[in-house]
Amino acid sequence: MNTGKQLLDIDELWCIKEDRFSGETTKHYEGLFTQGNGYMHVRGSFEEGLEGAAQDEEYLRMPANVTLEKPRHPESKWGTFIPGVVGKHPLLKEEIINLPYFLSMNLVIAGEKLDMKLSNVKEYRRWLDLRNGCLYRTFIWETKAGLSLRLTYMRFISMSHEHLCLQQLGIEALSGQGVVDIACGIDAGVRTNGYNHFREVLTAEPETGCISAETLTDGGDRILMLSSVKASQNILWSRQQKDQNVFFWGSKLLKAGDCLEVQKAVSVVTGRDNEAGELLERGLKYLRAFGAEGREKLYENHAKVWTEKWKYSDIKITGDFEAQLALRTSIYHLIRSNCENDPRVAICAKGYAGEAYFGRYFWDTEINMLPFFIHSNPKAARNLIMFRYNTLEGARKNAGAYGYQGARYAWESSVSGEEQCPCWQYADHEIHITADIVYALCHYVNGTGDLEFIWNHGIDIMVETARYWVERVDINKNGYYELLGVMGPDEYLPMTRNNAFTNRMVKFSLDKTVEYLEAVRKQDANKYRDIEKRLALTPEDMARFKDVGEKLKIPFDANTLIIPQSDDFQDYADLDFDTIWKDRTRPFGHFISQERNYRSKALKQADVLQLIMLYPGDFTREQLSASYDYYEPITTHDSSLSASVYGITAAWLGRLEEAGKFLKKVMETDMSIEKKGAAEGIHIANCGGLWQMIVYGFAGLKSAMWCSEIRLEPHLPEKWEKLEFTLAWHGKWYKAAITQEKYEIFEMQDQLEA
Amino acid sequence: MNTGKQLLDIDELWCIKEDRFSGETTKHYEGLFTQGNGYMHVRGSFEEGLEGAAQDEEYLRMPANVTLEKPRHPESKWGTFIPGVVGKHPLLKEEIINLPYFLSMNLVIAGEKLDMKLSNVKEYRRWLDLRNGCLYRTFIWETKAGLSLRLTYMRFISMSHEHLCLQQLGIEALSGQGVVDIACGIDAGVRTNGYNHFREVLTAEPETGCISAETLTDGGDRILMLSSVKASQNILWSRQQKDQNVFFWGSKLLKAGDCLEVQKAVSVVTGRDNEAGELLERGLKYLRAFGAEGREKLYENHAKVWTEKWKYSDIKITGDFEAQLALRTSIYHLIRSNCENDPRVAICAKGYAGEAYFGRYFWDTEINMLPFFIHSNPKAARNLIMFRYNTLEGARKNAGAYGYQGARYAWESSVSGEEQCPCWQYADHEIHITADIVYALCHYVNGTGDLEFIWNHGIDIMVETARYWVERVDINKNGYYELLGVMGPDEYLPMTRNNAFTNRMVKFSLDKTVEYLEAVRKQDANKYRDIEKRLALTPEDMARFKDVGEKLKIPFDANTLIIPQSDDFQDYADLDFDTIWKDRTRPFGHFISQERNYRSKALKQADVLQLIMLYPGDFTREQLSASYDYYEPITTHDSSLSASVYGITAAWLGRLEEAGKFLKKVMETDMSIEKKGAAEGIHIANCGGLWQMIVYGFAGLKSAMWCSEIRLEPHLPEKWEKLEFTLAWHGKWYKAAITQEKYEIFEMQDQLEA
Repeated sequence: MNTGKQLLDIDELWCIKEDRFSGETTKHYEGLFTQGNGYMHVRGSFEEGLEGAAQDEEYLRMPANVTLEKPRHPESKWGTFIPGVVGKHPLLKEEIINLPYFLSMNLVIAGEKLDMKLSNVKEYRRWLDLRNGCLYRTFIWETKAGLSLRLTYMRFISMSHEHLCLQQLGIEALSGQGVVDIACGIDAGVRTNGYNHFREVLTAEPETGCISAETLTDGGDRILMLSSVKASQNILWSRQQKDQNVFFWGSKLLKAGDCLEVQKAVSVVTGRDNEAGELLERGLKYLRAFGAEGREKLYENHAKVWTEKWKYSDIKITGDFEAQLALRTSIYHLIRSNCENDPRVAICAKGYAGEAYFGRYFWDTEINMLPFFIHSNPKAARNLIMFRYNTLEGARKNAGAYGYQGARYAWESSVSGEEQCPCWQYADHEIHITADIVYALCHYVNGTGDLEFIWNHGIDIMVETARYWVERVDINKNGYYELLGVMGPDEYLPMTRNNAFTNRMVKFSLDKTVEYLEAVRKQDANKYRDIEKRLALTPEDMARFKDVGEKLKIPFDANTLIIPQSDDFQDYADLDFDTIWKDRTRPFGHFISQERNYRSKALKQADVLQLIMLYPGDFTREQLSASYDYYEPITTHDSSLSASVYGITAAWLGRLEEAGKFLKKVMETDMSIEKKGAAEGIHIANCGGLWQMIVYGFAGLKSAMWCSEIRLEPHLPEKWEKLEFTLAWHGKWYKAAITQEKYEIFEMQDQLEA
Repeated sequence: MNTGKQLLDIDELWCIKEDRFSGETTKHYEGLFTQGNGYMHVRGSFEEGLEGAAQDEEYLRMPANVTLEKPRHPESKWGTFIPGVVGKHPLLKEEIINLPYFLSMNLVIAGEKLDMKLSNVKEYRRWLDLRNGCLYRTFIWETKAGLSLRLTYMRFISMSHEHLCLQQLGIEALSGQGVVDIACGIDAGVRTNGYNHFREVLTAEPETGCISAETLTDGGDRILMLSSVKASQNILWSRQQKDQNVFFWGSKLLKAGDCLEVQKAVSVVTGRDNEAGELLERGLKYLRAFGAEGREKLYENHAKVWTEKWKYSDIKITGDFEAQLALRTSIYHLIRSNCENDPRVAICAKGYAGEAYFGRYFWDTEINMLPFFIHSNPKAARNLIMFRYNTLEGARKNAGAYGYQGARYAWESSVSGEEQCPCWQYADHEIHITADIVYALCHYVNGTGDLEFIWNHGIDIMVETARYWVERVDINKNGYYELLGVMGPDEYLPMTRNNAFTNRMVKFSLDKTVEYLEAVRKQDANKYRDIEKRLALTPEDMARFKDVGEKLKIPFDANTLIIPQSDDFQDYADLDFDTIWKDRTRPFGHFISQERNYRSKALKQADVLQLIMLYPGDFTREQLSASYDYYEPITTHDSSLSASVYGITAAWLGRLEEAGKFLKKVMETDMSIEKKGAAEGIHIANCGGLWQMIVYGFAGLKSAMWCSEIRLEPHLPEKWEKLEFTLAWHGKWYKAAITQEKYEIFEMQDQLEA
């Protein structure tokens, strides 16, 4: 079998491993081992499923606090996601649909079905190679009938042919003999959060040697999956169907010493692909590549793309094996979940690696993930902002639904941009997302120099959201504008007054809008007239943006040592954390009622510290230090967006022990087997947070938002010998190398992709 | 036919009438004409149903703001409710179940089904006689086949035999001839808020001349309905079944001049009745009363009970026909919906006259309805408080669910006392209900002198809720206790700080608990020891109750002219009501998003004014007047609990024009045909509010809470010549008679019921 080389080459710095099977951690590994290529994503489930883990259970899932909810399916949940393929859930609003499971491969010997829980399995090992995105599994199965087999699985979702997935199974008979029944197919017995989004599933054999399952979703999408199968020895495959599963069935007599290799290819096409042609025609074309080019060639092309990706994305940490692997895992998932060629979608909160958060887009994209893309793949960064431009119409509808002019981005965005969050406290009050997007687009422009993006797209977002803000503010007795009824980043205080983070973001957004408009008016009267016309911009608009931007209340100034999270923050109750939080390995939210939480000074996540991190120039070191010391003890870090912010600011303060503690927390979020953190999907914002901890925190890179030159102020953890990474910066590539003693930045000769 | 006399006697001061049929207002009259006897209640729907108004539609009703929601079933919704018969709705939690419709009577002539919308109907008239709770309908039906009939319906739910309902139909052939098919039965094709709570419905003919439908609900209750039918002429009745409807079917040839009278009786028994014996045995026993005593005797017994009720409840207003009728309608519904003999239930928010508010119990019972019962039926008042005593265990569970000791009453209580409100902002934050109950029980005791009630039951409520309060408070920097995260009576501000109403109520509750406990300790050491033992009361409890009661922050004092609704009230935004509220005939809430509403100074209902009304001795006339002038313009009165409070305080201030305006608003709530206010049920709290407007407002009765003697301070509306009412007061009956010039109070010789 061709994977022999890779099998020997489990590089500890590049491979995440599972050394033994346990039902307890299967779901965690399903999330952690998710494979994908931007276009499609599949969780790392076993090819044969798992005993007792039904995938088509229907139940009524209620809107709830996802962070604290106990999810169903404790042991295993398949996940097959195509960004943009969504449907309406009666209670949860629009959600990404968990599509038919196309990895299905089942083995039966003398009536005994292979199952990791039930079968007698030895020498089990599974690993994901981050270099090439291939998932491997090998073990010995001792069947009851006496036949003993070594099975070796390998699969990848092609990075070079985005509609293709290839699977391979090597079977080596070690002792005994018997007939192996093999079934390879597509299983539509899948429900999303307990709901059936499939209006119909049509199965067929469109041509000899090819089976198909065509799904019509309740969102109106058609998904065609085609599959073919090859074996190294002659097997007569017949198409069969059982319940919602269509598959090729074949059998082979094996005796000790026999080897058999089975290869399966799947092509997936949808009606929303940006391609001409009938579904079947396109699907067959991609599938035939498997027949024509062969698996080896396809693998080579695939691996080449991954190598290229890593060239510009990898960060090398010498002296810290754990941090190295965790960081590469994060970067792997960021690369995988980025839909590079499709600005109609962005990166959802679970990185298309689970049903949690319903495949929706949050502020995480802009604040947590975007910096990685600005500096490793500027085109992808641009696409992420373009998603917001493409959903401006949805944002306009959101504003209208609340009775406002302009555009208001959704707290939980669907592909249309319309609000999908079913819990009003977030949807109604967590309004900073709308300003975060303007911050992010300015960050992109400042990091890349792509000013044209402002004039052609960005300014539309800026003007339309400014129109919303000038209506969303209230004026107070002193003539200042206020933002009342606001949930800041800290989601444990749902309705506060003048949240410092939010007000500062909104002020930035309004000021930048005025600044860009005034600049273009001076520099290019024609262009300004175009913008005026396109956006029906009036002098009154401008005057109002300026007025509100100038007079929006900022609840701190140079004399405020501890920045107040909001005007009313001191009115909330103090808590005795030690009494309440009995087990700090579990979220604080599990130990307190929402009612009490909502009236107490217990932060879910960084809020003021997030503000300082994004606007470092606004604050002195003393303000940072005092705010850190005040807020850290009352921050629960129940949100995965928190630890990295504290870690970065701790590094800035030179508090390396604290920074190390937060680094550990960030790494554990998805990597810890004990916490099973990846069970419901990847905390993809935390992946971006880990990148930021390394680059902004330990390397001390000054944000491109505020600094036109590359500037570092490193604070490496003690045991780190060297830190090396690449940076895209204003259209050029740079390499940085940092040791405890010194650092170097040099320009690379590589050209940036257009 | 025997109803001839009543037909002529439509007393305008006692009968609410519908003079023409309209699909637009049918649902309103269904609510307004609801009949009941405490044990069971049926909306005033047509016996034959209504074309196009399916009653068994299933749909997913979501938790929402009931006040502002657009309900389904615009034209007609049956409603058959037995207090206490509840089931679990998957989204709305526990709700009262709309049971099979037992009034069903259908007529068909030559294939033409009688239907108010489709049939050719003349001289239509329908009215509810409040004196005896009988509902009448008469009209001429000109059938397509040429037969013309005068039909006269009459029905009542017996006040003397609580399990019995009697119906009567008189048919007089005016011209033509033809065969009339008559079907009388029980229709189980009923869903509650779109949900099927019936696990099974078994129909049978348990003995000759009797049909039955036995329903097993998802709440585990068995409801047996039995029905028999009699005719004045010989008709051969056969039992038939169609879909979920079981009925007697018979037919008769009629020609001009013929008369036919059909009588139908239904008995209803359930497994939760406080009676021994098998369901069938009991049901048949009650049904046989119809055969044995005959309709006339049953009617007489029934009417006698109503006469007795009115003797102690009626209020006579001379000089204002509209107020007279509206007030009697309110009193009628209060009497009807009171489950006099069953302290396991109370009076639900829609008075068992509709599906809205799900048959749940709110603070309305204690604050809006209780005064009527204290002064017209003290035994019923005691029962209402006993309901809270009986649900103390549920209240303990509620407290526990939030992590508190003691008892916390539900914002929306089920029969178990457990919280059923599916919207967290009310359930979590509208906490005053727990103190309102203590206020109400003290009000009952002060109005009746029933001090024993405190020692045997009330003190349990007081101590257990006090234990909750001392945990619910937070201590502030100044050493004062605060109540944070509170929704006061005004439901348009969900999370405020130290709501004046709530804090005052809680202080009252704690102070009274300490006061009663100290009193009994001094007076009766044995009794005190009993209480100590029963409630595991410790000196620490007492000290803590006292401390929190003393130091609970009351956000006003004698120098506060305008009482602040809460500590943070001035931090909310001012609104330009004229711009937003484009049509003042519709609720303000329809014109503003919840998001904006929640951050603005727009009150849903009286809050500070409710406080002043309940604690008049705490405030000067100047404080009342200034607070009234400040809050009235920013109060939307979107809640039906609001207008009566403003009306009462306006009367106290001698502002009779304003009081008159609010009186009109209160009367219109259920009576206005244009507003169709009763469509979803009776606003039973508003009924109590109307009684309070007359007695507390215009008659100026000083609340028995604060005054041991009867004292009046009348402010009669100008056109009122005389106001007369009875009052139960400390175990005796009094009569008050008020004219513009003077008033008299004299004791009656009647004995109060034990």
